[in-house]
Amino acid sequence: MSPTPQWVKDLKPSPPQGVDILKSERSKSKISVDKLSDFLFTKEVIERQDRILKILQAEKVFDKSQNYFDGRVERFKTSLARAKKLRQLQVKHNWNRDEYMVANELISEPTPYGLHASMYLTTLEGQGTPEQHKLFLEPAQNYKAIGCYAQTELGHGSNVRGLETTATWNPEDKTFILHSPHLTASKWWIGSLGRTANHAVVMAQLIIAGKTYGPHPFVCQIRDMKTHEPLEGVHVGDIGPKFGYNTMDNGFLLLNKVKVPHINMLARFSRVDPETNKYVKPSSPSLIYGTLTWVRSTIVLQSGGVLARGVAIATRYAAVRRQFQDRDAPADANSENQVLNYTMVQYRLLPLLAATFALHFTGKAMMGLYQENQKNMNSEAAKTSNASRGPGPEETHSGSDLLADLHATSCGLKALGSTTAAEGLEVCRRACGGHGYSSFGGIGTWYADYLPTTTWEGDNYMLTQQVARYLLKSARAVLKGNAPNNDTTKIFTTFLQKQDMGAAHDVLGSDSDLVAAFAWRTSFLTFEALKHRDVEKNSWNSLLVDFWRLSTAHSQYLVVKNFYDALQSGSLRYELDPGTIDILHKLFRLYALNTLQQEASEFYSSAAVTVRQIQLARTKTVMKLLEEIRPHALSLVDAWNFPDWQLDSSLGRKDGKVYEDMFYRASELNPLNGLTVDPYPDSDILIKKDETAKFKSKL
Amino acid sequence: MSPTPQWVKDLKPSPPQGVDILKSERSKSKISVDKLSDFLFTKEVIERQDRILKILQAEKVFDKSQNYFDGRVERFKTSLARAKKLRQLQVKHNWNRDEYMVANELISEPTPYGLHASMYLTTLEGQGTPEQHKLFLEPAQNYKAIGCYAQTELGHGSNVRGLETTATWNPEDKTFILHSPHLTASKWWIGSLGRTANHAVVMAQLIIAGKTYGPHPFVCQIRDMKTHEPLEGVHVGDIGPKFGYNTMDNGFLLLNKVKVPHINMLARFSRVDPETNKYVKPSSPSLIYGTLTWVRSTIVLQSGGVLARGVAIATRYAAVRRQFQDRDAPADANSENQVLNYTMVQYRLLPLLAATFALHFTGKAMMGLYQENQKNMNSEAAKTSNASRGPGPEETHSGSDLLADLHATSCGLKALGSTTAAEGLEVCRRACGGHGYSSFGGIGTWYADYLPTTTWEGDNYMLTQQVARYLLKSARAVLKGNAPNNDTTKIFTTFLQKQDMGAAHDVLGSDSDLVAAFAWRTSFLTFEALKHRDVEKNSWNSLLVDFWRLSTAHSQYLVVKNFYDALQSGSLRYELDPGTIDILHKLFRLYALNTLQQEASEFYSSAAVTVRQIQLARTKTVMKLLEEIRPHALSLVDAWNFPDWQLDSSLGRKDGKVYEDMFYRASELNPLNGLTVDPYPDSDILIKKDETAKFKSKL
Repeated sequence: MSPTPQWVKDLKPSPPQGVDILKSERSKSKISVDKLSDFLFTKEVIERQDRILKILQAEKVFDKSQNYFDGRVERFKTSLARAKKLRQLQVKHNWNRDEYMVANELISEPTPYGLHASMYLTTLEGQGTPEQHKLFLEPAQNYKAIGCYAQTELGHGSNVRGLETTATWNPEDKTFILHSPHLTASKWWIGSLGRTANHAVVMAQLIIAGKTYGPHPFVCQIRDMKTHEPLEGVHVGDIGPKFGYNTMDNGFLLLNKVKVPHINMLARFSRVDPETNKYVKPSSPSLIYGTLTWVRSTIVLQSGGVLARGVAIATRYAAVRRQFQDRDAPADANSENQVLNYTMVQYRLLPLLAATFALHFTGKAMMGLYQENQKNMNSEAAKTSNASRGPGPEETHSGSDLLADLHATSCGLKALGSTTAAEGLEVCRRACGGHGYSSFGGIGTWYADYLPTTTWEGDNYMLTQQVARYLLKSARAVLKGNAPNNDTTKIFTTFLQKQDMGAAHDVLGSDSDLVAAFAWRTSFLTFEALKHRDVEKNSWNSLLVDFWRLSTAHSQYLVVKNFYDALQSGSLRYELDPGTIDILHKLFRLYALNTLQQEASEFYSSAAVTVRQIQLARTKTVMKLLEEIRPHALSLVDAWNFPDWQLDSSLGRKDGKVYEDMFYRASELNPLNGLTVDPYPDSDILIKKDETAKFKSKL
Repeated sequence: MSPTPQWVKDLKPSPPQGVDILKSERSKSKISVDKLSDFLFTKEVIERQDRILKILQAEKVFDKSQNYFDGRVERFKTSLARAKKLRQLQVKHNWNRDEYMVANELISEPTPYGLHASMYLTTLEGQGTPEQHKLFLEPAQNYKAIGCYAQTELGHGSNVRGLETTATWNPEDKTFILHSPHLTASKWWIGSLGRTANHAVVMAQLIIAGKTYGPHPFVCQIRDMKTHEPLEGVHVGDIGPKFGYNTMDNGFLLLNKVKVPHINMLARFSRVDPETNKYVKPSSPSLIYGTLTWVRSTIVLQSGGVLARGVAIATRYAAVRRQFQDRDAPADANSENQVLNYTMVQYRLLPLLAATFALHFTGKAMMGLYQENQKNMNSEAAKTSNASRGPGPEETHSGSDLLADLHATSCGLKALGSTTAAEGLEVCRRACGGHGYSSFGGIGTWYADYLPTTTWEGDNYMLTQQVARYLLKSARAVLKGNAPNNDTTKIFTTFLQKQDMGAAHDVLGSDSDLVAAFAWRTSFLTFEALKHRDVEKNSWNSLLVDFWRLSTAHSQYLVVKNFYDALQSGSLRYELDPGTIDILHKLFRLYALNTLQQEASEFYSSAAVTVRQIQLARTKTVMKLLEEIRPHALSLVDAWNFPDWQLDSSLGRKDGKVYEDMFYRASELNPLNGLTVDPYPDSDILIKKDETAKFKSKL
């Protein structure tokens, strides 16, 4: 690869320059970007991010320039080095958990410590006794032991009850024998297990005297603490490359009658009495379901930001990129139109921009609700007698109605939020045209790494059953007159009262009517499903598609409602100027009305609105909102406050130097350009000259 | 990495075994798989594939076992070696173009010769004079020169008229000076250019005496034929990694006043007279648009097969995979249910299965129509006087009405077919649950490589404008009474006749009514759009979303109609037994009715059907069709006749050995397992032992 000639270095993009276009774009909107950022995240959080960003950028190991070029083995090595450095920085700067997470988000890749720092520590903390904390948690917190959480198996995903790995209590020597009876029992997908961890919390079927008590957690050392070689009876490794997430060593694990002492069964909730050899039932299963609810609420909150990265990149590039002239422009008009001016592009991007705010406000409300309910639940849990652990979260009827509502809400919103984010990112990538396909675009890798979120913590389709089950249960209670007082039962009651006179929702004129129309549709679909199940006695399986539709409808209602509520809050009026509030209000209407017209047939058939209203929403109101929001698009994505270093995208550069950056990366950083090939099919030589090594970053 | 212990080798998946499940599945359907394959592809094509497969499998260079593990540089090298070997085999076995394409499809990766073998040769052949064929085409056909087709630029995609590269006629020495005036003029995305080609057809703005005549093709040598180093004034390289397509060296090219002789401008259609220094206009632009139509028709035909790969993999795995018990099964039922039995999974996969057949039949019909019209067009072209080349394909009004209809049809169907295939593949991948995310699933890479099809040969959103423009033009002609007689004008005429008495389409009872309902919706949306444009005088830009909806509606009508027509064909009745025909008929109804219920609101608002019909279609008919097709799902995907070697998928194995194959690849082929790391953050050592080289395949 010869050096770049001077005539190339002298070239600039054809005018107007991206820098000038973005400056002019920003000058067109009166939105106070900083104030909006502060409102979304708080000033403290933004300052914290700035501080941590500086620390990371100063470390060579976090240099991102080779990320898009490296193969799997290189990426894993680099990521392990980053994980180590990150831990060193955490100790050095005394970062708390939040600060450590911010650093991870700025680096924006899963590292091999990922599951140690999250699930391994959390599980030990939450499910271990004080004695076990001393024995397992403390060394783990100090990174003297590196662990992971081994639940999923090669043949078993969502259905935890179907796990095959066994833990058989051996009364002779007071040990558990961990064993993988079949190939399908192999633990699979376990983050940080493949090459990194030397410990695992293994979920295994507890067997005492031939009887099975369901899956329980066991701490199991799997590798030698010095040599890091697998221990006797342990077959462990990385499961291979994936669509994304390739900096992580997701692993497999087979165990051949591996003995662990009695103390290795995590015993906070249930245990085996070593004296009597009897099983002692869990004291409070709902605490565990609380954790699941918290994890899902986090996913909802994050989904807004995840999607916002794609929207920010696509919006900035659509402002810089120009293509074709406006068809109605005079024939001699010479300059090409900004892509963001085309309604077809606005129609794809701006509703997603609205969705980022909708999901953010919904996630924040969920987290608030979770914290509020956590207190209720703890006191509730103390009252609850030692109920059987029973059939896993899918089947559980919690003692607390608030928890049940929050649980169902979190299931539905997790599914809707992560699906919206994942599919929205792909829409953003395609809206960038051909360059969206380049790794330098920055959306593809981010999308690929995010995709598992639609599957983990409850597959998005599976989760919809839980939402439907809860809604059916609530509807039955309302019909019986013994329903608890919450929002769900309230909208059902309203629906039943008005059912026989019909509804008249002024969705285009009144925001509260718009919310009510979504509530009406949820209620209608719930009572339809209830009829199919309870009156017509249809099989559960035959109704799964209806349930999925119902759950989606309900979750859309919740997002619309939460966005609406956020706009009513006092802090909003205190922190933001009326112009900015007005734009947020337009985003609310865009999200709600665009969803309404997309799901039109359910709104018709439930008689929540008229055909004419839908047509007006589709052809007039939504198009008008796109036009009104368009001038503020750039400021709105700026308010998400992503540093360029985090986005790592040529197309999404804040300064608009799109083409310069694309060219620089291709021409100066791309190792493939170190290969000089022999192009002729008859030649024995494949590569004449290999200078790829010159491009590789050194660790 | 220690060798796999014996106790691991002895493990089998828990029963029942995948092999037995798939056997039992296949025994449940009476469909004659072989006959259906023959009907779809012909016996000759199937035998040809078998023959070529054997030849490829015998060559070590085509071994696929490291494909999912290798990084970009390795993959490119391997792919270049494969391209060379493939060319050698072509010469050795005297393969024609079709046989060479079959071999490429079995290998299933773009190779660095890809654009040489397609666009470079085709362009020289189609646009060169006999003298130019001698000079450029012959060495290219013999692989003495390797070329590519350089049109797209860094700043310019779909809008060919906006290209910046210039070719200035120099009357002094009778040469063209090729030049890149700005960075954005850099050719970009050009397949085979990055490292492989030594020639390019460069599309550049022809300038004669200061006047621009639009983009024209110039042959330009870019690398030395011996050293393969770039020539003076040429800056060329690979554009870097992409979301997929990484075995291909898509390249960039900047030219600094590079001189090429007069003969290098491809002159079949237009040229510069070297004596008078005058531009000679193209003789027949429509021939070029004919090629575009052919390319798009090919994409439609391929989209069925592209999607079928994903459907085959997901369907087979959904048959092997079992999860949860049926909720209505007795509590003591122990075995888990096949995932394919869940209606939620059927609802996601089986309409896509129907779409594979729908697109296949539509593509075949399109190709037939193309060939038929090609004759008409050639005679038409001879009659056409030397019209100005004018404003590129987007703006062209062809002399032939048949061509215009076919052109619009091919645009709309290219967009619908490739979008259906791309998005459908992702649905298939997710329907595989967690394992769909593993590279070994085989869908992810295939999807990622296919994605550019939604952008190239006309961006799928851009294309919808051309369809709408054609439909508006046809509608105006029908209103004026001077319309040509074709299917489009026929459905418009029917619509206008019945408009004022309304329609009564028995979509659930009559297949021809079902087709008519789709025609009605197209017609309704066309006349609505016409009103917006011609009466209300709305701007073109404000109607782009309506046009996109209209194009989608029309293309769905065409697919439904072509599927319906295929079922009426005599050869079908001759070649297939009634049972198989019955299932194909059910697939037709599933495709049509599922599309109808998904697009319900347009069918309502156009009054093509009633609300009740939609509800019945959604809740009864579609669900019933899923149930009826379910037992034949495996046989239907088998009929697509993909060799395991082609699919390269653990999940899609024809024999059902899903888990054995996943495990083997992870445990035995995965180079990452050659790394033994030091897991502690304080340690200076990152890698204790690196045995990754053991896993690498040798070339």
